[in-house]
Amino acid sequence: RDSFDILLLPGDGIGPEVVGAARGVMDLAAEHFGVKLRYEERKIGGEAIRDEGGPVSDETLEAARASDSVLLGAVGHPDFDDAPVRPEAGLLKLRKHLGAFANLRPVAAVPALLDASPLKKEVVSGVDVLIVRELTGGAYFGEKEEGDERASDLSVYTKEEIDRVARVAFDAAKRRKRRVTSVDKANVMATGRLWRKVVTEVSKDYPDVELDHVLVDAAAMHLVREPGRFDVMLTENLFGDILSDEAAMLPGSMGMLPSASLGEPGSPGIFEPVHGSAPDIAGQGKANPYAAILSAAMMFRHTLGRPDVAEAIEQGVSVALEAHFLTADLGGSKTTEQVAEAVGRWIGAG
Amino acid sequence: RDSFDILLLPGDGIGPEVVGAARGVMDLAAEHFGVKLRYEERKIGGEAIRDEGGPVSDETLEAARASDSVLLGAVGHPDFDDAPVRPEAGLLKLRKHLGAFANLRPVAAVPALLDASPLKKEVVSGVDVLIVRELTGGAYFGEKEEGDERASDLSVYTKEEIDRVARVAFDAAKRRKRRVTSVDKANVMATGRLWRKVVTEVSKDYPDVELDHVLVDAAAMHLVREPGRFDVMLTENLFGDILSDEAAMLPGSMGMLPSASLGEPGSPGIFEPVHGSAPDIAGQGKANPYAAILSAAMMFRHTLGRPDVAEAIEQGVSVALEAHFLTADLGGSKTTEQVAEAVGRWIGAG
Ligand SMILES: CC(C)[C@H](C(=O)O)[C@@H](O)C(=O)O
Ligand SMILES: CC(C)[C@H](C(=O)O)[C@@H](O)C(=O)O
Repeated sequence: RDSFDILLLPGDGIGPEVVGAARGVMDLAAEHFGVKLRYEERKIGGEAIRDEGGPVSDETLEAARASDSVLLGAVGHPDFDDAPVRPEAGLLKLRKHLGAFANLRPVAAVPALLDASPLKKEVVSGVDVLIVRELTGGAYFGEKEEGDERASDLSVYTKEEIDRVARVAFDAAKRRKRRVTSVDKANVMATGRLWRKVVTEVSKDYPDVELDHVLVDAAAMHLVREPGRFDVMLTENLFGDILSDEAAMLPGSMGMLPSASLGEPGSPGIFEPVHGSAPDIAGQGKANPYAAILSAAMMFRHTLGRPDVAEAIEQGVSVALEAHFLTADLGGSKTTEQVAEAVGRWIGAG
Repeated sequence: RDSFDILLLPGDGIGPEVVGAARGVMDLAAEHFGVKLRYEERKIGGEAIRDEGGPVSDETLEAARASDSVLLGAVGHPDFDDAPVRPEAGLLKLRKHLGAFANLRPVAAVPALLDASPLKKEVVSGVDVLIVRELTGGAYFGEKEEGDERASDLSVYTKEEIDRVARVAFDAAKRRKRRVTSVDKANVMATGRLWRKVVTEVSKDYPDVELDHVLVDAAAMHLVREPGRFDVMLTENLFGDILSDEAAMLPGSMGMLPSASLGEPGSPGIFEPVHGSAPDIAGQGKANPYAAILSAAMMFRHTLGRPDVAEAIEQGVSVALEAHFLTADLGGSKTTEQVAEAVGRWIGAG
């Protein structure tokens, strides 16, 4: 296919800037490859609470379902910290509505940025891990009891939920170094024991992929001490939230990290930078658009079926980085737009 | 007081070696200060499963309750990985039985060992954080549903449980840099919202301690990027398990880190190294005893009311480290015993 409907959800803070930058790059890439992109733009998060009375409207959820994929900026704003409904609820609803159960977060050391890492060069260089996080189960979506004296969260997993996300991880490993590290807390949690059992079962269908199991506390250690040992890391929703943010620090900047949230084949995915809405620098042209641009590349690869376009964008990013097109968070002084222009200029270069 | 009953629970793997080493140091310190220590030794973990049919017997639980404090080595052994009852269950039972609701894990950069850290020197030097982890609530002790098709874990917190552990953190902060960072997942979890509310409430009784709230995913990031910003980090059981192991990597070796698990004032505490049972090196004299020795020091400070003895032991440790008494994990070649002897020799030195 060469014609796609994209829903843009810029959201809060720097979301609009980075989504705008990514859209510019997507347009240039589309032109280059003779692909046609149609956009619709809607509100999510704090912006939607302000203008539409809720963090995501039913119309927006329907528009997402009708699209080929969603490019999201960021949600969250301190204005709503004590509000009864939070911007984040919009994101959770969207994930659930699209059945986007597998969150893919690749974290790779960028040679040009190694100095920015808090880790020693020899620890971080060569790091290339893909975190596959289950995204529509666990404590995020279980029954909750809210109270002033007592509160509870229920974490539930079914065999089927574990099975399908495990297959995403094993399929990804086949295209990488053929190693899956499954992370759980099987020594304490019932969901952890089921997780371990089902993942072991699924692994039998992938005899050429090596599987090991690591407890979540040990995984949090290994990510700092020896991140190079991981290829694909598979885990449940809450652990994935924590570990993927920990891993996000390895390359030295969150500003480089894209993500994809995928459902059943053929359903629209959600593509978004890992970084937050950073309201403190919003509207100043300082935001780093690389993560949003790389999220757009993931969209071409994972749901639009155009890995050629994805690679061209990724090449543009590599060249722009080598040429030191860096925003302030990376130690440079380029604006959001200057970075996007540079990436666009070098699309498919190299 | 100058006479105490100590229950030794050496446990599995290297547990007996490091507890033996710590006991030697305690005896020398006791002699030095005219303190009398009486020991009882019992089994826990895999060893207890093998010899007593369960990971901790009722007699052992009672002996713990009757003691002034417990010094524990390590529990866990791969022999029991697929066993219906795991060695770890003994530890969880002991914590619950003693009502040891506050787990204190100090993590400080050791100048002599900075090179061992995976982090850059400038990131890790000066790090001095105390993690206060709630230890008898949350997903560890909530109702569980085990099944082949579906499993669940319930995490429950009451106001009272949060209140009492928060006070431990604020009291500790008063003796340190007067900053508490409370970690939760209030944007998703009901227990997280109650946690934040109760901790905020408790903070009003500590006007001279600064409080901030951080989401657990952000905390996992900050621990790698900027660990120096933390003083006391307060969190619930499961998050504490993950974050304290992540933090344990900062100084470069787990082999240095002690812990204390405390209940109501006057009740016996559990003191144990943070490291595991390391069965691969057990019985070879290679185990690093510093963490066990420092755990014994914490015991003198926190439950035996003898900070003078604690400091003397800690001084012995500092001098032994400066003098390069290092086991293999720290890049040295000293045996467990040689390290313990060196610490003993320099007790109260400096
Ligand atoms: C915004 C928040 C609800 C979300 C999550 O916890 O899943 C975010 O931290 C993420 O990782 O995408
Ligand atoms: C052994 C295990 C049950 C335990 C825990 O998870 O609490 C350990 O990891 C710890 O942190 O003391």
